Amino acid sequence: MDGIRTVGLLGGGVIGAGWAARALLNGLDAVVCDPDPEAERKLGEVVANARRAWSRLTLAPLPEPGRLTLVRHVEEAAEGADFIQESLPEREDLKRTLLARAEAMARPDVIIASSTSGLLPTRLQAGLRHPERFTVGHPFNPVYLMPLVEVCGGGQTSAETTQRAAALYQALGMRPLVLQREVDAFIADRLMEALWREALWLVHDGIATAEEIDDAMRFGPGLRWAFMGTFLIYRIAGGEPGMRHFMAQFGPSLKWPWTKLMDVPDLDDALLDRIVAQSDAQARGEAIRDLERKRDDCLVAVLQGLRAQDYAAGAVLKAYEERLYPSHGAVSAAPEAKPDAPLLLHRARVEPGWVDYNAHMTESRYLQVFGDTTDALLAHIGMDAAYLAGGHSWYTVETHLRHLRELAEGEALHVTTQLLAADEKRLHVFHALYRSTDGALCATAEHMLLHVDTRAGRACPAEPAQRERIARILAAHAELARPEAAGRRVGLA
Amino acid sequence: MDGIRTVGLLGGGVIGAGWAARALLNGLDAVVCDPDPEAERKLGEVVANARRAWSRLTLAPLPEPGRLTLVRHVEEAAEGADFIQESLPEREDLKRTLLARAEAMARPDVIIASSTSGLLPTRLQAGLRHPERFTVGHPFNPVYLMPLVEVCGGGQTSAETTQRAAALYQALGMRPLVLQREVDAFIADRLMEALWREALWLVHDGIATAEEIDDAMRFGPGLRWAFMGTFLIYRIAGGEPGMRHFMAQFGPSLKWPWTKLMDVPDLDDALLDRIVAQSDAQARGEAIRDLERKRDDCLVAVLQGLRAQDYAAGAVLKAYEERLYPSHGAVSAAPEAKPDAPLLLHRARVEPGWVDYNAHMTESRYLQVFGDTTDALLAHIGMDAAYLAGGHSWYTVETHLRHLRELAEGEALHVTTQLLAADEKRLHVFHALYRSTDGALCATAEHMLLHVDTRAGRACPAEPAQRERIARILAAHAELARPEAAGRRVGLA
Repeated sequence: MDGIRTVGLLGGGVIGAGWAARALLNGLDAVVCDPDPEAERKLGEVVANARRAWSRLTLAPLPEPGRLTLVRHVEEAAEGADFIQESLPEREDLKRTLLARAEAMARPDVIIASSTSGLLPTRLQAGLRHPERFTVGHPFNPVYLMPLVEVCGGGQTSAETTQRAAALYQALGMRPLVLQREVDAFIADRLMEALWREALWLVHDGIATAEEIDDAMRFGPGLRWAFMGTFLIYRIAGGEPGMRHFMAQFGPSLKWPWTKLMDVPDLDDALLDRIVAQSDAQARGEAIRDLERKRDDCLVAVLQGLRAQDYAAGAVLKAYEERLYPSHGAVSAAPEAKPDAPLLLHRARVEPGWVDYNAHMTESRYLQVFGDTTDALLAHIGMDAAYLAGGHSWYTVETHLRHLRELAEGEALHVTTQLLAADEKRLHVFHALYRSTDGALCATAEHMLLHVDTRAGRACPAEPAQRERIARILAAHAELARPEAAGRRVGLA
Repeated sequence: MDGIRTVGLLGGGVIGAGWAARALLNGLDAVVCDPDPEAERKLGEVVANARRAWSRLTLAPLPEPGRLTLVRHVEEAAEGADFIQESLPEREDLKRTLLARAEAMARPDVIIASSTSGLLPTRLQAGLRHPERFTVGHPFNPVYLMPLVEVCGGGQTSAETTQRAAALYQALGMRPLVLQREVDAFIADRLMEALWREALWLVHDGIATAEEIDDAMRFGPGLRWAFMGTFLIYRIAGGEPGMRHFMAQFGPSLKWPWTKLMDVPDLDDALLDRIVAQSDAQARGEAIRDLERKRDDCLVAVLQGLRAQDYAAGAVLKAYEERLYPSHGAVSAAPEAKPDAPLLLHRARVEPGWVDYNAHMTESRYLQVFGDTTDALLAHIGMDAAYLAGGHSWYTVETHLRHLRELAEGEALHVTTQLLAADEKRLHVFHALYRSTDGALCATAEHMLLHVDTRAGRACPAEPAQRERIARILAAHAELARPEAAGRRVGLA
């Protein structure tokens, strides 16, 4: 990390503490200057949050955490630091005074960066003796998780300084964005402010509440903005004809009364050409179809991730799935029609996402299909959402599978189910998976299910109604021949 | 689904096709009207994309897919439809003409919704005979994955219409947002447009390129916008003192030159009170600390999801992790180091997409992990792409699984592999899956693999080099105790 062992942090608020956490997790020592008597508690809380988040974020072997030292004077943080990051309140006079005091103690090769989200680096560096070593390094909250850091030098900043600062941020796991030009609020905050002003107008005009506005973002465009920005999303929306087509189609709407603030750049040929060229460069020749798939893959990943959190768009997906599970009444296939035949409780088709590189159904999807069949069986014997909510369920504890034939993408399949045995807490079932077009047997599964008290975490007898249902099926199935594969063990003999 | 079996879709472009896909996947029939001679191909591509995305999005049992019918005339789509959704080009005259033609054929109880992203419902419904049954239902691209749909009635729309439309959208897995007031561009597009104008100004003024602007979003604020909007994120940034403090601290910056467009609402007491009250209502009494943790949990989930895609912020994380890992060749654990121990060839973590609605790793994912372990074993004994291309491979023909302990999302796991037996065309292996944090045994798998000539479709001896490698491992493993579970059969006895 470029010889950097210790970072000196001016300010231990939410941003400064975030920098401290990121440094510590990367094995750097952090010396934080903050006169707040509560600084130690606040710093400790942020560092604890960061540690918790990172324990789930990555399995990679991290270095030994660095040491955190809290000091009261700027000079103590600057002395001995290999890199200085200032995260003081957004007051130019305060920042300039303390930056100058820090510089007086810092070694001459040490970079001094500011976390300011809006003050211009040219003005902040004006009072320094070596302004060439000063740059803005603007992070986002929480600093220990958000990758972006905008690196913006001032008029006197050297190219070496912005490069070395960017290299350090990258080593800390961040994504530096080095700005071409100095501008108030840099890039991300300009976009955030534009959106924020519009949001304030919507509230001001009584059109929507804060919560509705947030919902309009997190269930809508915000989901896409997590992995593509606005230009690439619009490029995809333009479809095969590309960005110029999109601009032609949607450019005019910029003149419609769609935002409160109407002054817009003149979409002349020069600007249009520039946008098209930049969009082309960004797409690097990838076809719209490939970009669409990447967009979809990322949306799936974001939605699945949020589903596990039962939050935002993930909560919508989770509630939707819960409505689909058979306990709420799906499953049909009239299994009573022939009580002495194996049950036919599940049909499916080999979905595009189920096949391997040979276009055959991949091994684990067989078990998924058998698991869905087991779910259908459990619904059939009377297990529903209320039963699960009451703290009882059936768990699969043992499985034997035979793979007999391959299935190709798009092929229809169905699964029959035979009950082999049962007692008050166990259920021994045999599924047979057939290709529906010709009835060829493709795989079998033999399962042992255990009825459990999910709160106590131990086996217990199933409710009488389910046991009665099981007994009736078992009696009907007693007439059936025992499948040849039942009771098989894996072995060479 | 409120008696709805068939949706009539006016327009089969990217939005109309997305509606078709969402309807079909939910078991509804879709009749799409589009005169484009290429409509069938384009529709088919969108539906295929949707099917592929959904096969990875959810394991929930979906109904049998609906039937897709393409017609040339609006009347054919409207006749027999239980719900009509219009997704024509954004030309008011065109929409009004075709909406009136559709209405003439539609049953009187059928709702007619428009996907318009900007035209006012009061104007669109003006020419209808029963304007009370018309509403806007504005979706986002891709319609089959994006949850948001803005429901906005016009002056003559009945409350029943917006409620019934919202109920249908919800049944299709979406998140309807019913607008309180009719406004140009509704809510989400106003926010998107405000941000888009600022982005265009940044490009116009030569401050940043399209790619830099997108990067500033997707590595920064866009990540958070995927699960919280702007108000809740700012509330958290304000910390313990809450929203009023945030507004006091950052309100003044609205007067700074941070966006190109400067006209801002007057932040008087009345507006401030309203924002604070709305933010309080939205937070529902949750402490900042709890909100912070939820924010962090969601960011972790989004980042992990995107990491699996090696894209956007996920690619940053992945590259960072790879730098931390000791070697660049995946699998490590030097399996030769202790030849007489089971091999350690595979490590993984329970990904967000692997868990069921109880947040435990779902049954079939165990087999996926064991399958990945078998792949690692085969690579270890020398099977490579050239060998596969040469027409030889190993197939898993029989499997025995025991599920001993549940695994939660994010938990790290590793799998050990013991060779039990082999002959020239068979391999008998035993995998044990452990939770890495405490070494608890969670599952075991016993497999029989068969070496096959993939072109002839029959078993044949493996190449001598592989057999020699297998013999060496087998000799080393001869000293190991045979796993207690090996050779088990499923049964009650």
